[in-house]
Amino acid sequence: MADVILVLNAGSSSLKYCAYDAQGDALRLVLRGSIEGLYTSPSFRATDGGGTEVEARQWDEGTELGHGGGIAFLADFLRGHGEGHHLVGVGHRVVHGGVRFAQPERVTEAVLSELDALCPLAPLHQPHNLKPIRVLAERRPELPQVACFDTAFHRAQPEAAQAFALPASMTGRGIRRYGFHGLSYEYIASVLPGVDATAAAGRTVVAHLGNGSSMCALVAGRSVASTMGFTAVDGLPMGTRCGSLDPGVILYLISELGMGAREIEDLIYRKSGLLGVSGISSDMRVLLASDDPRARLAVELYTYRIGRELGSLAAAAQGIDALVFTAGIGEHAAVIRERVCRQAAWLGVTVDAAANASGATCISEPSGRVAVWVIPTDEELMIARHTKALIGAGER
Amino acid sequence: MADVILVLNAGSSSLKYCAYDAQGDALRLVLRGSIEGLYTSPSFRATDGGGTEVEARQWDEGTELGHGGGIAFLADFLRGHGEGHHLVGVGHRVVHGGVRFAQPERVTEAVLSELDALCPLAPLHQPHNLKPIRVLAERRPELPQVACFDTAFHRAQPEAAQAFALPASMTGRGIRRYGFHGLSYEYIASVLPGVDATAAAGRTVVAHLGNGSSMCALVAGRSVASTMGFTAVDGLPMGTRCGSLDPGVILYLISELGMGAREIEDLIYRKSGLLGVSGISSDMRVLLASDDPRARLAVELYTYRIGRELGSLAAAAQGIDALVFTAGIGEHAAVIRERVCRQAAWLGVTVDAAANASGATCISEPSGRVAVWVIPTDEELMIARHTKALIGAGER
Repeated sequence: MADVILVLNAGSSSLKYCAYDAQGDALRLVLRGSIEGLYTSPSFRATDGGGTEVEARQWDEGTELGHGGGIAFLADFLRGHGEGHHLVGVGHRVVHGGVRFAQPERVTEAVLSELDALCPLAPLHQPHNLKPIRVLAERRPELPQVACFDTAFHRAQPEAAQAFALPASMTGRGIRRYGFHGLSYEYIASVLPGVDATAAAGRTVVAHLGNGSSMCALVAGRSVASTMGFTAVDGLPMGTRCGSLDPGVILYLISELGMGAREIEDLIYRKSGLLGVSGISSDMRVLLASDDPRARLAVELYTYRIGRELGSLAAAAQGIDALVFTAGIGEHAAVIRERVCRQAAWLGVTVDAAANASGATCISEPSGRVAVWVIPTDEELMIARHTKALIGAGER
Repeated sequence: MADVILVLNAGSSSLKYCAYDAQGDALRLVLRGSIEGLYTSPSFRATDGGGTEVEARQWDEGTELGHGGGIAFLADFLRGHGEGHHLVGVGHRVVHGGVRFAQPERVTEAVLSELDALCPLAPLHQPHNLKPIRVLAERRPELPQVACFDTAFHRAQPEAAQAFALPASMTGRGIRRYGFHGLSYEYIASVLPGVDATAAAGRTVVAHLGNGSSMCALVAGRSVASTMGFTAVDGLPMGTRCGSLDPGVILYLISELGMGAREIEDLIYRKSGLLGVSGISSDMRVLLASDDPRARLAVELYTYRIGRELGSLAAAAQGIDALVFTAGIGEHAAVIRERVCRQAAWLGVTVDAAANASGATCISEPSGRVAVWVIPTDEELMIARHTKALIGAGER
């Protein structure tokens, strides 16, 4: 019977999970999957570490499994799967750790209260992230739980990188640049020494380009600046989010167009970005396959803003030794990588078109001053590592 | 009797003016001054081209001179001054030219209507800028007037530099990055060939650092990107303006702190920036003289953001051949210039400390790859030049 660490990423209606064998030094992925439609029409999927489906189940339309029911089902499934897994700890992705949590944290009632208090900072995600923690704390109070934050990795940034130019009273209320995707950047920073020792000790800009997109400047493996700010809507344009927007635009939408806060939230979180500009799709693959001029404009705006932020982040790092692409678009959209690299030629960035097209790990020219890498991210493994370290699993 | 071009910059309660002798090819400044407190306690000042006071006048407390009365007084004063000036045209600084006006424009009733329609885009400035135009159009319909826009110079920017990642319906309503301080950048671009022919033909970043601060990237003398956006609150932190701010912050202020649009406008336009962060003053001189840690933080945040935007603008220009400092802080705060240059060392920017401290025009080291210049701006002269060109004054 294997000791298993479970990693949970809970959204409003879904529960994504990974289970790792925590025996010994390494962490081996044994199961991965999700329960979707928790409150409407639940469906469960599980694949093994090699990606082969091992189970799929569909509940009747209208079934309200909820977060509690989903977790109970998942625990049963793990216990019954194969020779039976013994759950030794659970790591949770929690979007917001506020100012205080600069590291993952073993969950206690006091920690949970603090995380609850951060819900207004991320109302769309934080409450859902915390639900499974509460459920498990009630049903399995002896089970160690660890909260891992998307913001924690960025708390090492200099004060000036984290501050808005607002009165101290506002900064004191927690209005600052938190940055997100921290678990992804921390994972990249953790594997970078094995890929490029010079960059790992030096200045690297990581472009996490997915449905949510952001970039982060690393110096000697620590975050010195990132593009997302107080919320995950700031910085780069994304699938449906607008990215950086003059705050005066929001005031204009209120005063001149009579829009309300919820309507504006809907606009800038769900109707903007690639979808909004193209009017076609939030999916980069669809836009790249389209010859509609609006699709071209959306893609152009996306790569243009990456180029501008690359300059800004290189300034934060005082230069650049390496550029890393990761996440869905970063790992799979060769044409986006190529355009980003070509427009960054002024920084010494090159691209080897053949290497880039063939899915190589190193895609810069051998003579290039700046190394360019494609490194798959693994936020779940990062959470599992943190969880293992904090609960001391496998150390016996 | 000299032909004179009058340049007007009208605010909500003040009227700044310059008068130029338009005879021949050059424009010679003959008078400069202001009428302040138009609706409360008006005071008039005039200095000659050399800066010597030639007239000062104070009205009784409570006198409502208004824009109309101010202009009437000014016209009388000009007619009576010295041997008498003959007004041949008036150039106005108008903050917003919208999407259409990419050049200064001779004022007609139709143009004035279009400019009126832009008031919602700049409600704090545009209506006041237009007042003197209306007054003069009524009283002196035969007098040629020219509107010169803070936005016009930036209309040459590529589409991606001007667009937010919002739906086309929003862009169609005029929600885009306009950029401001265009008359200042245009003036710098006009004198740059005489200062640094390489930079004028190449890539220059201009830092207009005053009570309002912004930066602009020039390629071959044309604007390719700037830091201000839809409004003049975006980009760099300023005396009392916050600069770039995650749009999610505005939604948070509404939803969580219950603030209204006017209160938020007051916060981000009048209580933030250097004043907000320091809690002491919006005046850079006061902050630099203070050893209060909040003053130091405000200055640090200011220079840090300049450094980040410099990287972003260098990306827009595909590199940098020269950096130009201008406007109040840019022309007079040697310590700010020095800090900006030192943190831009990664771009090849250098600073000759002695030259910088002594107020030299060139402050980079002779061996520096990027030339660094201090060039006083002159928006009024730029307006006078445009006005002269459009009305054909002095050409006889």
